[in-house]
Amino acid sequence: MFTPVPTTPIGVLSDAWRACVGTGRLNLALRSDYRDSLERVQREIGFRHLRGHGLLSDDLGIHRPYEFEGVRRVRHAFGYLDQVVDSWLELGIRPFLELGFMPSGLASGEQTVFWWKGNVTPPADEEEWAALVVAVVRHLIDRHGIDEVRSWPIEVWNEPNLVHFWKDADQAAYFRLYERTARALKDLDASLQLGGPAISPGSDEWWAPFAEFVTSREVPIDFVSRHAYSSGPSQRVPFGVYQTLAEPQTLLDQFAAPRRHLAGTGLERLPVHITEFNTSYRPDNPVHDTAYNAAYLAPVLAGGGDLVDSFSYWTFCDVFEEENIPTSPFHGGFGLLGHRQLAKPTFHLYAFMARLGAEVLARGADHLVTRHPDGRLAVLAWQPVDGTSAGAERHTVRLALPVGGPAVYAHRHRVNEDDGNAWTAWQQLGRPHHPTARQLDLLHEASRPALEHGVLPAGGGVVELELHLARHEICLVELEGVRDETEPWIDDDRVPGYAGGWRA
Amino acid sequence: MFTPVPTTPIGVLSDAWRACVGTGRLNLALRSDYRDSLERVQREIGFRHLRGHGLLSDDLGIHRPYEFEGVRRVRHAFGYLDQVVDSWLELGIRPFLELGFMPSGLASGEQTVFWWKGNVTPPADEEEWAALVVAVVRHLIDRHGIDEVRSWPIEVWNEPNLVHFWKDADQAAYFRLYERTARALKDLDASLQLGGPAISPGSDEWWAPFAEFVTSREVPIDFVSRHAYSSGPSQRVPFGVYQTLAEPQTLLDQFAAPRRHLAGTGLERLPVHITEFNTSYRPDNPVHDTAYNAAYLAPVLAGGGDLVDSFSYWTFCDVFEEENIPTSPFHGGFGLLGHRQLAKPTFHLYAFMARLGAEVLARGADHLVTRHPDGRLAVLAWQPVDGTSAGAERHTVRLALPVGGPAVYAHRHRVNEDDGNAWTAWQQLGRPHHPTARQLDLLHEASRPALEHGVLPAGGGVVELELHLARHEICLVELEGVRDETEPWIDDDRVPGYAGGWRA
Amino acid sequence: MFTPVPTTPIGVLSDAWRACVGTGRLNLALRSDYRDSLERVQREIGFRHLRGHGLLSDDLGIHRPYEFEGVRRVRHAFGYLDQVVDSWLELGIRPFLELGFMPSGLASGEQTVFWWKGNVTPPADEEEWAALVVAVVRHLIDRHGIDEVRSWPIEVWNEPNLVHFWKDADQAAYFRLYERTARALKDLDASLQLGGPAISPGSDEWWAPFAEFVTSREVPIDFVSRHAYSSGPSQRVPFGVYQTLAEPQTLLDQFAAPRRHLAGTGLERLPVHITEFNTSYRPDNPVHDTAYNAAYLAPVLAGGGDLVDSFSYWTFCDVFEEENIPTSPFHGGFGLLGHRQLAKPTFHLYAFMARLGAEVLARGADHLVTRHPDGRLAVLAWQPVDGTSAGAERHTVRLALPVGGPAVYAHRHRVNEDDGNAWTAWQQLGRPHHPTARQLDLLHEASRPALEHGVLPAGGGVVELELHLARHEICLVELEGVRDETEPWIDDDRVPGYAGGWRA
Amino acid sequence: MFTPVPTTPIGVLSDAWRACVGTGRLNLALRSDYRDSLERVQREIGFRHLRGHGLLSDDLGIHRPYEFEGVRRVRHAFGYLDQVVDSWLELGIRPFLELGFMPSGLASGEQTVFWWKGNVTPPADEEEWAALVVAVVRHLIDRHGIDEVRSWPIEVWNEPNLVHFWKDADQAAYFRLYERTARALKDLDASLQLGGPAISPGSDEWWAPFAEFVTSREVPIDFVSRHAYSSGPSQRVPFGVYQTLAEPQTLLDQFAAPRRHLAGTGLERLPVHITEFNTSYRPDNPVHDTAYNAAYLAPVLAGGGDLVDSFSYWTFCDVFEEENIPTSPFHGGFGLLGHRQLAKPTFHLYAFMARLGAEVLARGADHLVTRHPDGRLAVLAWQPVDGTSAGAERHTVRLALPVGGPAVYAHRHRVNEDDGNAWTAWQQLGRPHHPTARQLDLLHEASRPALEHGVLPAGGGVVELELHLARHEICLVELEGVRDETEPWIDDDRVPGYAGGWRA
Repeated sequence: MFTPVPTTPIGVLSDAWRACVGTGRLNLALRSDYRDSLERVQREIGFRHLRGHGLLSDDLGIHRPYEFEGVRRVRHAFGYLDQVVDSWLELGIRPFLELGFMPSGLASGEQTVFWWKGNVTPPADEEEWAALVVAVVRHLIDRHGIDEVRSWPIEVWNEPNLVHFWKDADQAAYFRLYERTARALKDLDASLQLGGPAISPGSDEWWAPFAEFVTSREVPIDFVSRHAYSSGPSQRVPFGVYQTLAEPQTLLDQFAAPRRHLAGTGLERLPVHITEFNTSYRPDNPVHDTAYNAAYLAPVLAGGGDLVDSFSYWTFCDVFEEENIPTSPFHGGFGLLGHRQLAKPTFHLYAFMARLGAEVLARGADHLVTRHPDGRLAVLAWQPVDGTSAGAERHTVRLALPVGGPAVYAHRHRVNEDDGNAWTAWQQLGRPHHPTARQLDLLHEASRPALEHGVLPAGGGVVELELHLARHEICLVELEGVRDETEPWIDDDRVPGYAGGWRA
Repeated sequence: MFTPVPTTPIGVLSDAWRACVGTGRLNLALRSDYRDSLERVQREIGFRHLRGHGLLSDDLGIHRPYEFEGVRRVRHAFGYLDQVVDSWLELGIRPFLELGFMPSGLASGEQTVFWWKGNVTPPADEEEWAALVVAVVRHLIDRHGIDEVRSWPIEVWNEPNLVHFWKDADQAAYFRLYERTARALKDLDASLQLGGPAISPGSDEWWAPFAEFVTSREVPIDFVSRHAYSSGPSQRVPFGVYQTLAEPQTLLDQFAAPRRHLAGTGLERLPVHITEFNTSYRPDNPVHDTAYNAAYLAPVLAGGGDLVDSFSYWTFCDVFEEENIPTSPFHGGFGLLGHRQLAKPTFHLYAFMARLGAEVLARGADHLVTRHPDGRLAVLAWQPVDGTSAGAERHTVRLALPVGGPAVYAHRHRVNEDDGNAWTAWQQLGRPHHPTARQLDLLHEASRPALEHGVLPAGGGVVELELHLARHEICLVELEGVRDETEPWIDDDRVPGYAGGWRA
Repeated sequence: MFTPVPTTPIGVLSDAWRACVGTGRLNLALRSDYRDSLERVQREIGFRHLRGHGLLSDDLGIHRPYEFEGVRRVRHAFGYLDQVVDSWLELGIRPFLELGFMPSGLASGEQTVFWWKGNVTPPADEEEWAALVVAVVRHLIDRHGIDEVRSWPIEVWNEPNLVHFWKDADQAAYFRLYERTARALKDLDASLQLGGPAISPGSDEWWAPFAEFVTSREVPIDFVSRHAYSSGPSQRVPFGVYQTLAEPQTLLDQFAAPRRHLAGTGLERLPVHITEFNTSYRPDNPVHDTAYNAAYLAPVLAGGGDLVDSFSYWTFCDVFEEENIPTSPFHGGFGLLGHRQLAKPTFHLYAFMARLGAEVLARGADHLVTRHPDGRLAVLAWQPVDGTSAGAERHTVRLALPVGGPAVYAHRHRVNEDDGNAWTAWQQLGRPHHPTARQLDLLHEASRPALEHGVLPAGGGVVELELHLARHEICLVELEGVRDETEPWIDDDRVPGYAGGWRA
Repeated sequence: MFTPVPTTPIGVLSDAWRACVGTGRLNLALRSDYRDSLERVQREIGFRHLRGHGLLSDDLGIHRPYEFEGVRRVRHAFGYLDQVVDSWLELGIRPFLELGFMPSGLASGEQTVFWWKGNVTPPADEEEWAALVVAVVRHLIDRHGIDEVRSWPIEVWNEPNLVHFWKDADQAAYFRLYERTARALKDLDASLQLGGPAISPGSDEWWAPFAEFVTSREVPIDFVSRHAYSSGPSQRVPFGVYQTLAEPQTLLDQFAAPRRHLAGTGLERLPVHITEFNTSYRPDNPVHDTAYNAAYLAPVLAGGGDLVDSFSYWTFCDVFEEENIPTSPFHGGFGLLGHRQLAKPTFHLYAFMARLGAEVLARGADHLVTRHPDGRLAVLAWQPVDGTSAGAERHTVRLALPVGGPAVYAHRHRVNEDDGNAWTAWQQLGRPHHPTARQLDLLHEASRPALEHGVLPAGGGVVELELHLARHEICLVELEGVRDETEPWIDDDRVPGYAGGWRA
């Protein structure tokens, strides 16, 4: 009845889950709420890299053509970029550079994507493009040192397989861009890490030609990348969409796809980065704000590291404007944190992961048992969900855990439809579009996980842990060894109100 | 079954409960943990005044005799005092000055009180004493302005009726000290507020002679003061004591005593300040760390303001050394906050009080119903306890509250033996004397009140609130009117996992 | 030789100089560097109001048309506005609301101004415009209270007399907009303060028809406003301009113009707000970064309050994008603070003003002598400049000041071509476009005013202050009465290195 | 005339000068002003270790005898110690443990030292002493790890050669204490670093017997330690002393003494730590507050690292109570920082040292020329003083420095009798005992070094640096290579006020 958990680890918990996280366009990194959010995310989770669009877009101000003495010239200006990267590094997170979109002064056309109008046309002049990307990376090396910058993966463009993101989804043009970029940067410094093709789900037909192209032409490449989402088509309503979801396994299948498709090619041993993933690919689908999203993603976080080198949740906060400025504090944004730094259930899933140990003692469809170097156990448990139905009102996990000593202190954090769930509280408040300062305080209080704690007796080196999970619950149980320092003269019966032994 | 609560207020909630709070000796106010604690107390509670011992003791360094050219002189040095008072004012709290104890250079004897050795003998030279107190208050006026300083009550000495605090508990000597002090300070500025006699419980025989003395000699007096505690004799164990407690009403009776004893005297209309109160008068009685302490004091806080102008909880934090330096994070200290700013249940009682409204709609043996200016209701409820027995495992409060609109959002914070109770978690961890950084994190998490929230339907302008309280629980329920801003296109059934109406 | 300064004040220093300051478009107020800058400006200067463009522009996200059930509707969304206004109020500064520019969903045309594309066409639907401005102000009243909001002046549009800012500079259309707006808001709350016409320099021909229009139609109006600049036409170079300047008096003449032109009309007694002023009206003229700018503006700040109710320096910081993103830390921006919060000389002029007293004892072409309530004198002195030539290498100010006591301590801060001048240091460093962290530290150090201090003997209640100012210097001299507390046993000759009396 | 400075380094600047710094007794480390001071010291200087008295004294509360069931027992309580050490490590500084003084419950007598009464008698029970020191170090290892703790030197007692610090200055008793302590701790962990004898100046006769004792008995020892001061006897006045000083070389001679005296013994190769040094050994000698102190110590800091492994300035701040609580903000305290974190000239000497490079290009009687890894030069210069006379009014240093490029930017910070000298300003203000908030602001402003900057032309790879130093000046000159990024269109003559070439 209680699943026995062995003492010997069955593996190591890869930290691919925290290797990278997504962000709104880089200009937004200048904002105060963005920094407050990133500060919190780093304090409670601690990602290693950050990836977002817009490095080369006009609102970062890098590519600056001008005319002097009748001649067109280009200045490269890094004032905003320095502010952004300096602030990231101060918060202990590094860039995962995405080279795009096209500066309007270098673009070959006027097609744009998103409310903020990222230009998605190829460069009008490939040499000027090469000079631009070299200038950017050279400046970063000058400012931060090559040892630092070579730890920042550099990805060429975003989802070139989609007509929205790359004019005509022109594969040949993308390959040319990739080659020109990779060669230019490797000429600058051969130790830089270059990769692509950053394709969206549903485009696995790109792998073979891409591998063929870079292999046959000996184009430098250090990693491959793609995205993963499990939602169906958008059903639009004002200021939002509804979508169906496939099963969680779909995401893991997408993670595994690059290695499968590249097997036998020259790229088969390259690192694989999932540079974006989430349930829905829309920044206005309410599922992102729910406990369901967290329960759905729990097995993905627990298992994704077996398949890839990183998988980057898209995105760490709701400071994001691809579909215009949000009109409500909860609006289905991608963020782990909502506006005003309100933690969503999926934020807690990540914060729980960050409290797990590196040794894996057991894994299952509803649990992950880990151990810290000092011997403490930490258990993540969740209600399994299928992407469609609600799941049962209650789910039970029973584990027989190996511990030392006669008892352990158990400290359980819970997030479900009622606990650690600001979305629920916001709905109960009537979904206010502009919460007052007081309502924001209530929502922040409601966003904190519930806590239960107690002592579990151990018998024969084993403690039986029985967890009743509420609907859509994810929970973290941390077990702390108890060393009893109670002095012989202590007698709680002598404290007023504590006589009679009811407490034991 | 549900107690009906009227719409028309039955009174105003006096803020006597937050008018003052106690502190360890003033030298401790230089400490970093003291300031961190005071900052938190002010942010979450917000007291108006702060009163503690040791203003004139050697470790504040004010009275500094020296010899020059063969003559003894006295310098008055205010470097530490300025640091202390500046920091209090920055945190929005003002001094309630207690004049004492005796600087060793002015003392007539060597008797001291406490581990930190406050000298409790009368001044060797009354003129030098008068010059000292005048110099202190004049300096404070110079630095902070008379408008500020006249809002700081000034109390002469502490518990002169006890031989531990005033040599031989010499009443005549105290009256002389009071008179000399009051006249000297009123000569400096007639608007200063002077008072005494700051007597301990069990000394009501002092009232008549004190009234007779000040009245007959026309000694200036602006308020009277005494202390209130409800514990019995100490039963000592190493590093602590156990004591019995009388009923909570005992404290209210002590509050009421000065007015009763002064009726018919010239002092009968003066403000009354309870300048110290708590359950136990010992800084090493574990009851202070418990939920029982909070449940016990709830009716005292709810009702004390009817009887006196202030009642000052002794003390706001465990930075305190009267019985030597504590040897354990929980050690029965007086503080609302323990070491490392761990909130105790009684801290939460005060924080709950701070979230109540000013209008009282109903009061009872287990509840206090209030309303804010904007119409929001806030309810404090508690399990009644008698000072001895544990009380029932469960207690129910049922109120029929007047509200507008079809429903209200209810936001309930709970503190009891399991929730918001770091003492319980510390015991479960084995009562570690020196918790690790990680254990401190767990204790801080355990110290937060539990939260429940939901929507309550209203019928006929009334909402029925049924509260099941766990053992020793105090809880705060805040009701927020719901204005439904849900748009017509919103359909939660279309969010994955939320179909089927299980949520409504 | 020393100008005698009387003891009796000749007037009060109006605080019109600090009543308002300009800001880049409101969306920029979301940025972290903007808030750091505003925090510093408020700490060292302390303005009362803040005025900028873009309240209604798309990037604040307020006006949000959508379609539902086949009908076009408009949502008003205030998420960003609340973030902006909340942060201002937290920093102790209030909005001076400028109603503009046109949301694209309400615009009648596509003409825009600035790099960030503010739409400058009239509303396509005047009722929808009125609903918009009423919704904005009603929301602000709901959130902040009417007592707060009625202290925020509300100005209709910006520089409608210029074709760049208002389509065709159509006067009749502006008057219609003004009337519709003023009536709608006064209907909401009659105590709101409305005003216009916010015209640019060189457009005094607007005053008579505007007065005639509002008077004859009894349109509500509470204040009038205009702008003031003293620069000539732009001589463009890449990423910047050069311009000539007229004399400083030109600005004061512009301040005085509204009252002169409105004399005899129904508006003659209304408050006058100069809602923008500076030397150059270009955000890329290097003069803004210089000591010359500060010396030039010193007499304007000293005298402007005699003429108008406020004059608002355009702008408080260089977070500003009207002419695209700056490509260099110094780029001729309007800001008192440059990028990375580098203080410019004009920042120090304002910080010096903030340290002056309210009583004016003397004023002259190169000085302003003030007194604080506690009797301390504070003197602002500057080298007079004419807007064109460099001024002498040195300028001397001699004042005979009334003081009590035998001596005063003089504390002099200096800003000139060498001191308190990061622009000079930046030029000396080779004008780096992307200063390293280390160079930024050097620049911050170079931006601090130099300090000199010493004791000035007083004779007959007068101290003679002789100030030698370097080129383009502004300086602040603060005089502190000296009360000698030196003890009789102090003998500096006994300190090693201090024997021999050389120090006296 | 200009001393030529070679391009090739003549050595490396040892960081012995920053290896350790002194602190007031450890209980004071709980204070808020102490932490503010340490935070600033670490930010601007960055010491590696911190050493002070009082680890085992009663006010840290570690040794806690009690009786239970009729038997005396001892609890070791580490609550305050943990607060202290945790806060140090957070600020990036580690303990240099000094084992002393004696807890009163373990003392063999009642003799104390200092106003705060440190007990200086041998332990009544050597086993209980050994158990105490082992318990302390074991607890530190448990909390911080052995890798951390083994980097903390452990010194046995303080100045046992003085009767004030060790009863009867009993050498044999000290040797016994040393042996018992060293053996006990090495038994706990052999990698701990133990040392002594921590003797005061003028006691070199202790070296031979100490070496003989530990060598002959094979007592563990990892380093030796002593103190260095250069002042003569105290000439007392109220609240202070005057003293003469010997020449600065005296301090360097004292640094060199242990190696000289231990030559040929078994200890000759051990690290030598000067665990205290300063000019005067009194905490109430005004010399500590002067520029003279800084000029005097400049050659000691520049040269001390050639002689010893560390030399620890006694002390980092004026939070210090050995001679009672200071009665004035400047009182001759040891601190680099005075009360309210006022920087003294010697603080700036250390801050200047912290900005030097690691390569030494030249050293002289009045200068130290260094180079950073990136090629930047940094020069420390000072006026040589002899400990008695004032020195000349002006001193000139001329250096011919090797640089690349046509010019360098020079950034010079100056501290002398007028600049960077809050003591002078305080004297000019009349030596106020209790400065107002406003006076404190003036003093803080006066405490900042003056800054000069400009461009120096280089010829033939050499720049001529001519420094005129004012009396008692220390100055730092940082040279930054200039890479001219001025664009061809830049023409300062076109900026109003800058025409005519006066600026070049």
